[in-house]
Amino acid sequence: MDWKPNTDSHLTLHDQIIDWIKERIEKGDWCVGTKIPTQRQLAAQFNVNRSTVQLALDELRAEGLLQSKRGSGVFVSNSSWNVLVNKTNPNWQQYIEGSVHEPNYHTIQLINQYEQVDHIIRLGTGELSPDLLPTKQLEESLKEISLESKAIGYSSPRGSKALRTTLCTYLKKKGIYTTPENILIVSGALQALQLIAVGLLEKGSLVFQEQSSYLNSVHPFQSAGMRVMSVLRGKNLPEHLRRLKKNKQSLFYCVPTLHNPTGYSWTLEERIAFYQTCKELQIPIIEDDVYHELLFTSGIEPIKALDTSGQVLYIGSVSKTLSPGLRIGWVVAPPPVIERLADIKMQTDYGSSAFSQEIVAHWLSTGLYENHLGQLREQLKIRAEFVEKILYQKFQSLANWEKPEGGFFIWLKFKKPIVNKALFLNLLKRNVLINPGYIYETRDLYHIRLSYAYASLEELEKGLDILFEVCSEY
Amino acid sequence: MDWKPNTDSHLTLHDQIIDWIKERIEKGDWCVGTKIPTQRQLAAQFNVNRSTVQLALDELRAEGLLQSKRGSGVFVSNSSWNVLVNKTNPNWQQYIEGSVHEPNYHTIQLINQYEQVDHIIRLGTGELSPDLLPTKQLEESLKEISLESKAIGYSSPRGSKALRTTLCTYLKKKGIYTTPENILIVSGALQALQLIAVGLLEKGSLVFQEQSSYLNSVHPFQSAGMRVMSVLRGKNLPEHLRRLKKNKQSLFYCVPTLHNPTGYSWTLEERIAFYQTCKELQIPIIEDDVYHELLFTSGIEPIKALDTSGQVLYIGSVSKTLSPGLRIGWVVAPPPVIERLADIKMQTDYGSSAFSQEIVAHWLSTGLYENHLGQLREQLKIRAEFVEKILYQKFQSLANWEKPEGGFFIWLKFKKPIVNKALFLNLLKRNVLINPGYIYETRDLYHIRLSYAYASLEELEKGLDILFEVCSEY
Ligand SMILES: Cc1ncc(COP(=O)(O)O)c(C=O)c1O
Ligand SMILES: Cc1ncc(COP(=O)(O)O)c(C=O)c1O
Repeated sequence: MDWKPNTDSHLTLHDQIIDWIKERIEKGDWCVGTKIPTQRQLAAQFNVNRSTVQLALDELRAEGLLQSKRGSGVFVSNSSWNVLVNKTNPNWQQYIEGSVHEPNYHTIQLINQYEQVDHIIRLGTGELSPDLLPTKQLEESLKEISLESKAIGYSSPRGSKALRTTLCTYLKKKGIYTTPENILIVSGALQALQLIAVGLLEKGSLVFQEQSSYLNSVHPFQSAGMRVMSVLRGKNLPEHLRRLKKNKQSLFYCVPTLHNPTGYSWTLEERIAFYQTCKELQIPIIEDDVYHELLFTSGIEPIKALDTSGQVLYIGSVSKTLSPGLRIGWVVAPPPVIERLADIKMQTDYGSSAFSQEIVAHWLSTGLYENHLGQLREQLKIRAEFVEKILYQKFQSLANWEKPEGGFFIWLKFKKPIVNKALFLNLLKRNVLINPGYIYETRDLYHIRLSYAYASLEELEKGLDILFEVCSEY
Repeated sequence: MDWKPNTDSHLTLHDQIIDWIKERIEKGDWCVGTKIPTQRQLAAQFNVNRSTVQLALDELRAEGLLQSKRGSGVFVSNSSWNVLVNKTNPNWQQYIEGSVHEPNYHTIQLINQYEQVDHIIRLGTGELSPDLLPTKQLEESLKEISLESKAIGYSSPRGSKALRTTLCTYLKKKGIYTTPENILIVSGALQALQLIAVGLLEKGSLVFQEQSSYLNSVHPFQSAGMRVMSVLRGKNLPEHLRRLKKNKQSLFYCVPTLHNPTGYSWTLEERIAFYQTCKELQIPIIEDDVYHELLFTSGIEPIKALDTSGQVLYIGSVSKTLSPGLRIGWVVAPPPVIERLADIKMQTDYGSSAFSQEIVAHWLSTGLYENHLGQLREQLKIRAEFVEKILYQKFQSLANWEKPEGGFFIWLKFKKPIVNKALFLNLLKRNVLINPGYIYETRDLYHIRLSYAYASLEELEKGLDILFEVCSEY
């Protein structure tokens, strides 16, 4: 213990002290929980100023190796391993924490946590109930799949040719005419957003989104250094976009069909006007169309169907229709974009599961998929009507809503701003989990995203009863 | 056309000119192929110096909006869309191109390209031949898979519990005792590297690797802003690491068993010494162990089996043994690391294919996997011996090599530095594709990575004949 820092070293005195203390901890001389000598004692031992010791201790504290306990001194904190490897890429963490307002973030964590709890009634969950997944048919279909050796090796960059080819046929029915070269198979729509964020945009680019937007559409862009800006659709949008864009590279992320969380679908006129504006301003569009299959009355086509200039990057997926566990989605875009995204995908995960791709290709090409979709829409419609009936009976004086046109959600709007964290927590106490509007847009205290897709009819009824009781108290 | 830049603007004159020209192109006033006025004409029109015009045109050319044709002037180049969306994240592109030496990079591109061509003899391909994949058995096994609704929904962050549980049993046989909480299922070993790169390390961290390393182990780290440093194993390693590390955060990526590209396996003594050094220097280890199953004689245990301090992040995968198309791998690490990586994985792709996970769990838990491994090792051994025999007959005067202990590769070392780009191209002319040593380490003109795993015995024989002929000419 008679070590002293070397004044001739190229390292500063406090860096040497840091190294020495780290060595003590590593070697176990000072094990976890050890109270270390006071600043005064250390300064005397090292023959340096107290301020030098303080600098070193502050840094070690910041690194998490040391820990002050008020009034009782400085201690060696938990295993240095944690400190060493659990250091987070600071930008990443900063984005995650900085981007989402504190209260939202905590609510989202609670939602994620309570979604794992068994007896909770999940009124907000944006996924198909296990009952609605065609589990048995999927199991059956596995028996019909024939594999080729080539198909289960490393994949070609764009993904299975068979799947891309059958997708072309499938997409025609939505008015999208494309070729396998314009398609990239991805591991779900979320991965598509991720690839676009890192592959196509410069740091500092603007990503426009509608106010109240799909939660996971924010992080990928922010983490990659883009700025996400909320805008309101409507007459002023073109002028607004023009003003915001200036000379910046930018992009518009939208969910024009059965939007998450609002459930709203844009009219044809809105689509055309929006497409024209973006074309004029040279703002590429990401059209996230994962709910399109779930329109109760088909008819409206994706914006991509209007696209003559390669302005739209179109994203689809089977997560909302067949099984999220397949992790299969697709991007339709001009070849240079596809090549770029494919290249990054190969560098990240070498392609999506060949087995999942085979299964999806099988379901698409045999018509199993469309058969299933017909049934699924019927089921969802029954659920939607069930919930609407309850809403009519109980909530008319409290809230407004629009008749759902498909998908999972009703965007219930209360007449008073009662949807705050207290309401969320009160409901949680009664085992009802909701997705409050403020997680999508901080200032929104009016909305709840009701999902009729997840909970059983019984649970929906019970959950809405409790919701009614709790809301009535406000 | 009587516009002039505004000298009172906050924008520079040349920036205003750039914007004006862009507007012309966007509005279609100047469509693709239009010849634009000369610098002299533009300078006169804008009432600025020619050098200002030149600056603006240079920038537009660099952006790809304009194009010079020698002797005939400057033209509007292809669709501005390409320019707009195909703009690459500059760092990414820079890393890719900056990191890998030009000649390597071109060779790698040629390899990727010619691997798609049918009649090429692939002497270097690091993947199982379609003949060695258990395609029919996999197809059969699909019939035995029973699915549960819960399993095909959105996954829990760490991946299938069933798979993680059966992996624990499996890993015991390698001396790794762990629990499902310490395991993260990933979409292949490459994704594990990607997650570690973005999730655990600060920008500027050092990533140590052995000289000549797995090609795809460099990009993920470099793209995330880490510095990759090659080191040589051996007696000097501890001193060398100590000197390089200084106070920097760092990590050692290694493939201690059947290394790619050398095929070499570290001895137990080497493993112990290495582990101790890294522990002492607080350098976490990434042990990439994707080839372990392919040791012809089992016995040596992974470094992870020595790990008492949670120092080792252990990576495995079924890509080299069962099917790369499954895209299933795993990381074994302390819980805080697993949580962190799982969190990022959820934000990137929401988990790996549930179907692939079911298949791997089935193969592991029924013993199908180990049965298959036994057969696969036999097949690979036959192939290795076949190639060795040819080497003995023909290459003794030209090169040295070590008897392979398993895996795919023989690291053939020529006595003279003849393995240059010319040799590579000469072989390609004769339809033989090799992986030359210089793609793994720029200055290495001695080695070829021979793979006996991919080409058929016939092709191996023919390819080696041609290799011999071409090399003899040197
Ligand atoms: C609008 C939207 N896009 C994408 C996703 C994610 O889809 P995937 O499971 O295909 O990644 C969701 C899921 O909630 C969504 O609501
Ligand atoms: C050492 C090493 N690690 C990882 C990989 C990639 O494995 P996976 O297909 O599981 O991503 C390879 C494949 O070439 C490899 O050689």
